[in-house]
Amino acid sequence: MRFIVLFLFSFTWYSQAGAAEKMGSSQGALVVTEMASGLEQPWGLGFLPGGGFLVTLRDGELRHYQPDGSFNVVTGLPQVVASGQGGLLDVVVAQDFETTRTLFLSYTKRQNGGNGTVLASARLSADFTGLEHLRVLFEMKSPSRGSKHFGGRIVEARDGSLFLTLGERGDRDEAQSLLNHNGAIVRVHRDGSVPASNPFAARAGALPEIWSYGHRNPQGAALDARGQLWVVEHGAKGGDEVNRVEAGLNYGWPVIGYGRHYTGFRIGEGTHKPGMAQPEFYWDPSIAPSGLMIYSGKLWPAWRGDFFVGSLKFDMISRLEVQAGMMREVERLNSAQTGRVRDVREAPDGSIWFLSVDKGAVFRLAPK
Amino acid sequence: MRFIVLFLFSFTWYSQAGAAEKMGSSQGALVVTEMASGLEQPWGLGFLPGGGFLVTLRDGELRHYQPDGSFNVVTGLPQVVASGQGGLLDVVVAQDFETTRTLFLSYTKRQNGGNGTVLASARLSADFTGLEHLRVLFEMKSPSRGSKHFGGRIVEARDGSLFLTLGERGDRDEAQSLLNHNGAIVRVHRDGSVPASNPFAARAGALPEIWSYGHRNPQGAALDARGQLWVVEHGAKGGDEVNRVEAGLNYGWPVIGYGRHYTGFRIGEGTHKPGMAQPEFYWDPSIAPSGLMIYSGKLWPAWRGDFFVGSLKFDMISRLEVQAGMMREVERLNSAQTGRVRDVREAPDGSIWFLSVDKGAVFRLAPK
Repeated sequence: MRFIVLFLFSFTWYSQAGAAEKMGSSQGALVVTEMASGLEQPWGLGFLPGGGFLVTLRDGELRHYQPDGSFNVVTGLPQVVASGQGGLLDVVVAQDFETTRTLFLSYTKRQNGGNGTVLASARLSADFTGLEHLRVLFEMKSPSRGSKHFGGRIVEARDGSLFLTLGERGDRDEAQSLLNHNGAIVRVHRDGSVPASNPFAARAGALPEIWSYGHRNPQGAALDARGQLWVVEHGAKGGDEVNRVEAGLNYGWPVIGYGRHYTGFRIGEGTHKPGMAQPEFYWDPSIAPSGLMIYSGKLWPAWRGDFFVGSLKFDMISRLEVQAGMMREVERLNSAQTGRVRDVREAPDGSIWFLSVDKGAVFRLAPK
Repeated sequence: MRFIVLFLFSFTWYSQAGAAEKMGSSQGALVVTEMASGLEQPWGLGFLPGGGFLVTLRDGELRHYQPDGSFNVVTGLPQVVASGQGGLLDVVVAQDFETTRTLFLSYTKRQNGGNGTVLASARLSADFTGLEHLRVLFEMKSPSRGSKHFGGRIVEARDGSLFLTLGERGDRDEAQSLLNHNGAIVRVHRDGSVPASNPFAARAGALPEIWSYGHRNPQGAALDARGQLWVVEHGAKGGDEVNRVEAGLNYGWPVIGYGRHYTGFRIGEGTHKPGMAQPEFYWDPSIAPSGLMIYSGKLWPAWRGDFFVGSLKFDMISRLEVQAGMMREVERLNSAQTGRVRDVREAPDGSIWFLSVDKGAVFRLAPK
């Protein structure tokens, strides 16, 4: 392996108490504004037309914020199993929300003999106070008793179908099976039916919802400008990954992976194997990647197409870019206020928003 | 790497002189019928509606065969550079041939300072005697003086766009460049324009025709039942590959590869690297793979979805199937008559046809 000079920016600015928070970056100082606070374990963030937004709290609460900062707790939420890494997870505002009022939610549901990740749709009432017509679109098969590796990130594809990421629930070897949903990314239509174009839709001995498999615990997912799906996933120690997700591919866990098991043992057969996809990038040491956002906005033209990934371990947002065909981490955005980052999103105005677990807050980044 | 028990059939039946040739297979005996002979370096084969077919000869000749076995040499062919591995290469009969009479051809053309692979369309006259309206749709940039690794296989995608495989012309490092077409698979519309959905269409510093890159010399290509593009390519010694081709991906040559350079040296950085695609399968020892066909016919239901790859080295057709998510070579079809195999195709009736270089013949395989 050739030696690669990695030019990595990392800025930390300590602001005076009470003053507006600032954060350094390769694109100059960023203004950090707190948009919401007092949030216990925020997980997902969705923007509404007109300037409002939604935040999920893992214990099962969905909050609606008005543009003026006031909020209400939305009623009619499903019963969730808030235990370990599970609970109410992601929220996505449908592309056609203005006409349909549709939201998509992921959460952990009690199932026979355990619990599993579920994808549901619902309508948000006209006054933003309650959910109506809650409907389960997909429910993970093979419930597991454990309370980790639920995945849970939702992406609405351009054609309106829905991707949901699923972790292997700690049942490592099940990530290689097509007979359960552990460690898979699944794709369903918004009425819950299975697209005939899914790669295993017509294959005997495979669950038809599976889009890709061999994942460990993908908690971040986004589309790029071409509509291509990407995920970030918690890997083994020294092996957190960025993956470009293609229909039908096997991402290798636990047969291959970079890094080592947290027990110190070598992973399966090593780092690579024919027929198993390589990551586009891996972090060593691991950063515990959460939400993924691929920037497309106007505020920082130089960042268009770059990947922004929240870190639950290093209290920062990792920025990756592609240079000469290779993905590289080039910057880590953080300040004294960042804390553990659970989600990163681009707002309609091109500003970058993130959820801080430690601060229990939603922050907005904008140019100075 | 775990030890894998590979159940590989290999049959050779010697028939009596003058008797109908037979070939053993896992699906019982196959009848081998010579459909055309006296062919010097046949390269590509295309089926016409009504039972006729076309064969290209590398020196620049296109032959049209009637269902009764008689043939004529088609006139109006472009000037080709028949030198080394170059010359007239593939022929594809357009999906809409019955209404448009369109064919697609690939060949080697003299260019400033060298030669390069070209994709052209033409109409076959109503009496099958001549080409009309020959039009170059794509011409490889960066001509090379060498006479090897031209690629040259054409695939018509379901949407009517055209894929053309290109080797790195022996200029190994150029396979990693997006500024030339060496070692790339390109995609153009049938009017020669570049699809806006090509992965590099909007990227500065990249040729917009490129679909994938980092290939060595792909000479076989086909679509599977889902419309997914696959190629087989001549790799390094012990590293011939089957690749599932995705838009924008880097297939790694010469940075990574299985096997070794023919000089005995280790390849680039080894067998794998993040951001570079792994093959689905590789042959060690190399078989020198030529044409690729993915079976979809009625004659051997057990073979549906299997890959059939011609070998220029071992005088056989390699059959691969996917077992438990892994591609494996499970059978080698050959007989005393096979010789070096340049192309394998499925005929409209579900029989398997192949071109033998040594025998200068077109053969048809059918159940006994």
